[in-house]
Amino acid sequence: MHVTVAIDCMGGDHGPHVTVPAALDYLRREDEATVVLVGLEDAIAGELRKHNAAAHPRVSVRHATEVVAMDEQIASALRGKKDSSMRVAVNLVKEATADACVSAGNTGALMAISRFVLKTLTDIERPAICSVLPTLKGHTFMLDLGANVDCTAEHLLQFAVMGSTLVSAVENKERPSVGLLNIGEEDIKGSEIVRHAGELLRSSGLNFYGNVEGDDIYKGTTDVVVCDGFVGNVTLKASEGLARMLGTYLREEFERGLLTRAAALVARPVLTAFKRRVDPRSYNGATLLGLRGIVVKSHGSADRVSFRVAIARAVEEARGGILNRITERMSFMQEHVA
Amino acid sequence: MHVTVAIDCMGGDHGPHVTVPAALDYLRREDEATVVLVGLEDAIAGELRKHNAAAHPRVSVRHATEVVAMDEQIASALRGKKDSSMRVAVNLVKEATADACVSAGNTGALMAISRFVLKTLTDIERPAICSVLPTLKGHTFMLDLGANVDCTAEHLLQFAVMGSTLVSAVENKERPSVGLLNIGEEDIKGSEIVRHAGELLRSSGLNFYGNVEGDDIYKGTTDVVVCDGFVGNVTLKASEGLARMLGTYLREEFERGLLTRAAALVARPVLTAFKRRVDPRSYNGATLLGLRGIVVKSHGSADRVSFRVAIARAVEEARGGILNRITERMSFMQEHVA
Repeated sequence: MHVTVAIDCMGGDHGPHVTVPAALDYLRREDEATVVLVGLEDAIAGELRKHNAAAHPRVSVRHATEVVAMDEQIASALRGKKDSSMRVAVNLVKEATADACVSAGNTGALMAISRFVLKTLTDIERPAICSVLPTLKGHTFMLDLGANVDCTAEHLLQFAVMGSTLVSAVENKERPSVGLLNIGEEDIKGSEIVRHAGELLRSSGLNFYGNVEGDDIYKGTTDVVVCDGFVGNVTLKASEGLARMLGTYLREEFERGLLTRAAALVARPVLTAFKRRVDPRSYNGATLLGLRGIVVKSHGSADRVSFRVAIARAVEEARGGILNRITERMSFMQEHVA
Repeated sequence: MHVTVAIDCMGGDHGPHVTVPAALDYLRREDEATVVLVGLEDAIAGELRKHNAAAHPRVSVRHATEVVAMDEQIASALRGKKDSSMRVAVNLVKEATADACVSAGNTGALMAISRFVLKTLTDIERPAICSVLPTLKGHTFMLDLGANVDCTAEHLLQFAVMGSTLVSAVENKERPSVGLLNIGEEDIKGSEIVRHAGELLRSSGLNFYGNVEGDDIYKGTTDVVVCDGFVGNVTLKASEGLARMLGTYLREEFERGLLTRAAALVARPVLTAFKRRVDPRSYNGATLLGLRGIVVKSHGSADRVSFRVAIARAVEEARGGILNRITERMSFMQEHVA
């Protein structure tokens, strides 16, 4: 299936300097895709010329006069900048010019604009942020990672349906297992909301594994891990912080003296393989799940490689037809589980 | 100051086999301490003989006929086993025979028994579990790590007072900085409870840094990180899971082939230094903070080294006089901040 992706070229810490070459890299690897580069025309055209792609047959440019700043207030981005590259990219999805869009811009603004422009899917009250994390067994999808601070049990159930549908669409798994993040395995553990979510999940028809604990995320116990956005966001950021700390410690030990530096030289291929394996860039791209359109949020500091990965994620989701699948699953559940 | 520690020798995955030699190791390093070994007399005496310490002048044995199982229901441990080693150890603190106690047993049971036997300090509604985590700058104290699933803003404030007092007592820091775990730095971020806790903290007289995010834990942004027990527990366990995953990956890369195994030999001293630096054993020992007595919970799987570390933590806290300090701080706050 041919997919068209709208790319907010101005978002992120680096803007067109990273987003444009990343889009071109992606097109080199993928024949069945077209990109619409959205943002300040001159900046984008300059980057395209620099990469000898001014006349690329699968690239078009859509001018947008404004840029949402990384630290901009949501209200200002939503109401004050109707012609921002972010908003125009989301609009292209809304009007079906694009099948998906990708932005490395301000998460809060992207979520607010996407909700406002695209609206949520039928029976979904709140969109959630879903991302892929590496595990001992492969990887797992976790949501919500920060869109919803206070969640009801019903919201958590909806996240489970969305996450499970996403995994079956992009991983070809018939019935992905779903874990409910909690502080113990027993059904009686956790807050009232989480316990009630457990009850809803048990009778949802989903492949519900039961409660999982923090360490189950990286053990890869389930295909999907569901939690509220506060817990998800803190857990994800703590993980980033811990990984960075361990990386720093490892480097410091190898740089301690002459002998350890020599050891580092010998161990370099191994350390490189290790780093490649846990490279956060290969996990870039969080999906704003539950909207009437596919919106992928790239990390703000994404480089060329990671931004390309986020584009690939958007295309994968468009091909997987996840939006229809979520709607079908929700309506099936509402009819059969009451 | 001479300190007497009651040790629940039967708790944990290994029982007296680990707890008794760990206590003896501790006494070898510390002259100003005495231990009371609590549990099945025969088992303890056997271990003491094995280590030629049957007549150790700073060791006494207190027989307790029952043992709380690691997976025992809290109600059964609390009501059904009045002569468990765990309960007797806590009782020794209550009756001031011991200045502190340590157990590697079931966390839920230890908290329930400690609350029941010791009661909470004046003005403290809920005890919290507090532990030390390594950071890029040294280490940080985080609480609550799982005792309280639902917390009010006032509870979070009390955790902040307790954590801050603990750090000033054991680290000799005049005014430790306190961070409130949240999903953004701005005051308006987070749930209503967390935002309200932020307000209380700003007018508490504590050295309140403001909101911190997940990655700030391991950056070492503040001396104390405060959160509810659900978030704290999930974050801690996710960190354990991630560290284990990264360790496994690193090992796998070094074991991949002949060349990588040779590199591992060369790099071994560096890898050993790295492992020592992040060794979770040196961070063993969570404090049940807010009780009228010092209770330290060791990891259930603790080995001899880590259990010794937990004993040292208990002694440190007894010497720091943290209970009086918490009570003073709370009453000062209630008088001066209203």
